[in-house]
Amino acid sequence: MTLRVTVWGENVHEQTNDIVARLYPEGMHACIAEALNEDDAIEARTAILQDPEHGLSEDVLESTDVLTWWGHAAHGQVSDEIVDRVQKRVLEGMGLMVLHSGHYSKIFKRLMGTTCSLKWREAGERERLWVVNPGHPIVQGVGDYIELPHAEMYGEPFAVPNPDEVVFISAFEGGEVFRSGLTYKRGNGKVFYFRPGHETYPIYYDAKVRQVLRNAVHWLRPEGSRWVDSCPNVPPDQAPNPVEIKGESLHKPGEEGFR
Amino acid sequence: MTLRVTVWGENVHEQTNDIVARLYPEGMHACIAEALNEDDAIEARTAILQDPEHGLSEDVLESTDVLTWWGHAAHGQVSDEIVDRVQKRVLEGMGLMVLHSGHYSKIFKRLMGTTCSLKWREAGERERLWVVNPGHPIVQGVGDYIELPHAEMYGEPFAVPNPDEVVFISAFEGGEVFRSGLTYKRGNGKVFYFRPGHETYPIYYDAKVRQVLRNAVHWLRPEGSRWVDSCPNVPPDQAPNPVEIKGESLHKPGEEGFR
Amino acid sequence: MTLRVTVWGENVHEQTNDIVARLYPEGMHACIAEALNEDDAIEARTAILQDPEHGLSEDVLESTDVLTWWGHAAHGQVSDEIVDRVQKRVLEGMGLMVLHSGHYSKIFKRLMGTTCSLKWREAGERERLWVVNPGHPIVQGVGDYIELPHAEMYGEPFAVPNPDEVVFISAFEGGEVFRSGLTYKRGNGKVFYFRPGHETYPIYYDAKVRQVLRNAVHWLRPEGSRWVDSCPNVPPDQAPNPVEIKGESLHKPGEEGFR
Amino acid sequence: MTLRVTVWGENVHEQTNDIVARLYPEGMHACIAEALNEDDAIEARTAILQDPEHGLSEDVLESTDVLTWWGHAAHGQVSDEIVDRVQKRVLEGMGLMVLHSGHYSKIFKRLMGTTCSLKWREAGERERLWVVNPGHPIVQGVGDYIELPHAEMYGEPFAVPNPDEVVFISAFEGGEVFRSGLTYKRGNGKVFYFRPGHETYPIYYDAKVRQVLRNAVHWLRPEGSRWVDSCPNVPPDQAPNPVEIKGESLHKPGEEGFR
Repeated sequence: MTLRVTVWGENVHEQTNDIVARLYPEGMHACIAEALNEDDAIEARTAILQDPEHGLSEDVLESTDVLTWWGHAAHGQVSDEIVDRVQKRVLEGMGLMVLHSGHYSKIFKRLMGTTCSLKWREAGERERLWVVNPGHPIVQGVGDYIELPHAEMYGEPFAVPNPDEVVFISAFEGGEVFRSGLTYKRGNGKVFYFRPGHETYPIYYDAKVRQVLRNAVHWLRPEGSRWVDSCPNVPPDQAPNPVEIKGESLHKPGEEGFR
Repeated sequence: MTLRVTVWGENVHEQTNDIVARLYPEGMHACIAEALNEDDAIEARTAILQDPEHGLSEDVLESTDVLTWWGHAAHGQVSDEIVDRVQKRVLEGMGLMVLHSGHYSKIFKRLMGTTCSLKWREAGERERLWVVNPGHPIVQGVGDYIELPHAEMYGEPFAVPNPDEVVFISAFEGGEVFRSGLTYKRGNGKVFYFRPGHETYPIYYDAKVRQVLRNAVHWLRPEGSRWVDSCPNVPPDQAPNPVEIKGESLHKPGEEGFR
Repeated sequence: MTLRVTVWGENVHEQTNDIVARLYPEGMHACIAEALNEDDAIEARTAILQDPEHGLSEDVLESTDVLTWWGHAAHGQVSDEIVDRVQKRVLEGMGLMVLHSGHYSKIFKRLMGTTCSLKWREAGERERLWVVNPGHPIVQGVGDYIELPHAEMYGEPFAVPNPDEVVFISAFEGGEVFRSGLTYKRGNGKVFYFRPGHETYPIYYDAKVRQVLRNAVHWLRPEGSRWVDSCPNVPPDQAPNPVEIKGESLHKPGEEGFR
Repeated sequence: MTLRVTVWGENVHEQTNDIVARLYPEGMHACIAEALNEDDAIEARTAILQDPEHGLSEDVLESTDVLTWWGHAAHGQVSDEIVDRVQKRVLEGMGLMVLHSGHYSKIFKRLMGTTCSLKWREAGERERLWVVNPGHPIVQGVGDYIELPHAEMYGEPFAVPNPDEVVFISAFEGGEVFRSGLTYKRGNGKVFYFRPGHETYPIYYDAKVRQVLRNAVHWLRPEGSRWVDSCPNVPPDQAPNPVEIKGESLHKPGEEGFR
């Protein structure tokens, strides 16, 4: 079964910064989608901030198994309505991969419930992403670590809830460390945060980074059925053990949607 | 050291519903504060939705070790600015106890990142809250379970992230079950969700429920130091291993606040 | 790809108790294997306590993707060597489903690190297993709950570490509750504890229970690669940043296997 | 209330290695106890492998709030009976701090359920332990990180279950990283693994390391009541909802201790 991926890109730096435009002439999202499409089991398309509904219409999300998210300069321009929509789909079971500066996106902060802040430095220093669980599906094919010659530094503390799993921990040339690969489950959806991807370095051309992107899409695939959220009233006579109403009550039995 | 608690009440049903007004003539918040003040180590005051800033000014939150939250009919009237403020204080280390229908409050949904929905029925049925960890500080003094003769039913699925601990699980007369006592950590703040407290029953007069409220306030006390969130730039020459800037860079080194 | 399952059965009650022998003339393990083999993607075989090496030779475990474990009367007769072997395979990535009274098996206690005790009563009472996450792969096809007309009661506290996910919570006719479906990850292996299965009731003939067994086997399948445990010495000149040995040292560099 | 700490030391290297004997003439355990006793709220005594019952009699453990564990060369000489005893006390609520090479102790492996393996190198290289949660009680007073000029390297993967919290992450001069401060809860007891402490370096004289030891003892203090493990039978007529026995049954009602 083909995994349908939507690669979301902010697509701002590509238009305003020469370095980024040179590195990613079609946009970072195009490069990420290309990396994913090298896997025959993945069918990746792109969507960008500037599209109507940021390219994330109900139809697009309905037909998306895994969404990847890269943003940096324009988090505030993402409409709350679209964030609501993406969150709903994650809880239903859609996978979400949040990339690099996406740590500060509305959708990631929404799902984490924390500020998602960190330390940072942009000096083109070396980063090594160490594998914490060598058997994990996400790290297959990367060996002991991924080495990136030039990267932005992100340092702890990373203000996120304790994850289900730490998959990568980075060590930077300057000395800092960072939990660079984290998994969460929210509702029936899986979430993977993956650190690399600063716009002024050719990170998404790195073979091992591309391998992780593909691995992660497979790991993030929806499993089970869609969890359709509701807050249903269960009338007393429809309880497994039917009950009589006792005493006075504020609500009428069966009254829907009060909550 | 005295624990400074602010008991927040929505205070709507008390004004509009005769049953609630009769049960809680001073308001549910007053009853909860009274239960807490039976403990000499606790100093509880109240704040309500109708107060300026909902009673949760910077000064009030600054001098609050633990905040308790009860709301139901007017979640939407709580201003987002106050929710931001409460969230910030939780991440810094303030404890938060979310009560009953507070599961649908803005602050709880904010911290959980999920819808926090559930099943419900209001028939005055019997509830038993079973203790899952008999050694846990929160359950001291309650024995094997708490029995409430009349309660609103909440049933699974409860749409929250997997908690750090399940402290209580309820069984209802009608047959449903619910994770009724859940702990989380967000930033440096502890969060406790405690289910009982429907407004039309005298739940907050129950001796065991009051004991749990007091126990939980102690467990929720701030520990360690305030975590002041920031997203600092660490200049290359201030790294533990000072680094040279390599290659071209989008940002100027030391540029603050881009993120 | 076919999932290779080994269904392990203690096979003691079947030989000593008329009721059990009548319910499960081929043994409980045979009934469980039959339930699994209804799924074309699963190939289940059986192994029993009385077999040489309890039927769990290196070869058998090597060719097992998921192991199911039912035991009750003879936990102490399982050799520690076989427990070591099963634990090793779980950490490498083999899935493990622990059934009912298997909560007190050596292998489950080994993997949990706790006593795994609980309350119990055998009165043939009704049990309902409520679904906590309706989208989860393990609960597909069971609706809101599974109802078993006659079951042994297990009650909280269940002395296990906090699980990754609570999938089922049971309510018993007598009033008790129990976390009846729990998931864990240990090493690269997934673990699922599933409560139903008392030997004197025809639990493993129940259609929904059989559906859960099949679902769980799929969920437990190995993912990623085998995690081969080791505790390697990394010589100073093979570090990513080669280091000089400083000062005196108890061990000689490169000395293997001290730890 | 004074915290009663027992500092357990293997006390083997001190007797057999000149460097260790010179660094820790009274034994490493004495140095650790001294660090703890600088805090007036702590009363630390020592126990060693060579003592009768390894110094961990029922009486000693009974009067111990927090136990610290350092071992390396003689894990196999610790009797299983004492390991059982320590595990029982942890589950009841006693805090446990496992130090450095104690990662391979019987008690730590017992509580984790995994191999607890890791990479290692002994070259006297620099280690920095970065703080992951600056508000956490355990890290108070250490700033952004602890720097140790000479340390043994431990590298990921660290084969332990996902912890409740990662408090420290180390970066080593040679490039490796390690989760150096981890918290767990097992039963009602808290567990803290703290990495530093190789015997041939003066680690336990470091002011920040000593601060963490003291902080951790406070954090590990027992809370709530002792969780006395049992596996009780609840007779049908003593259920909250008394039940009639239905059908045939393997066990007689009320029969104790079958499990």
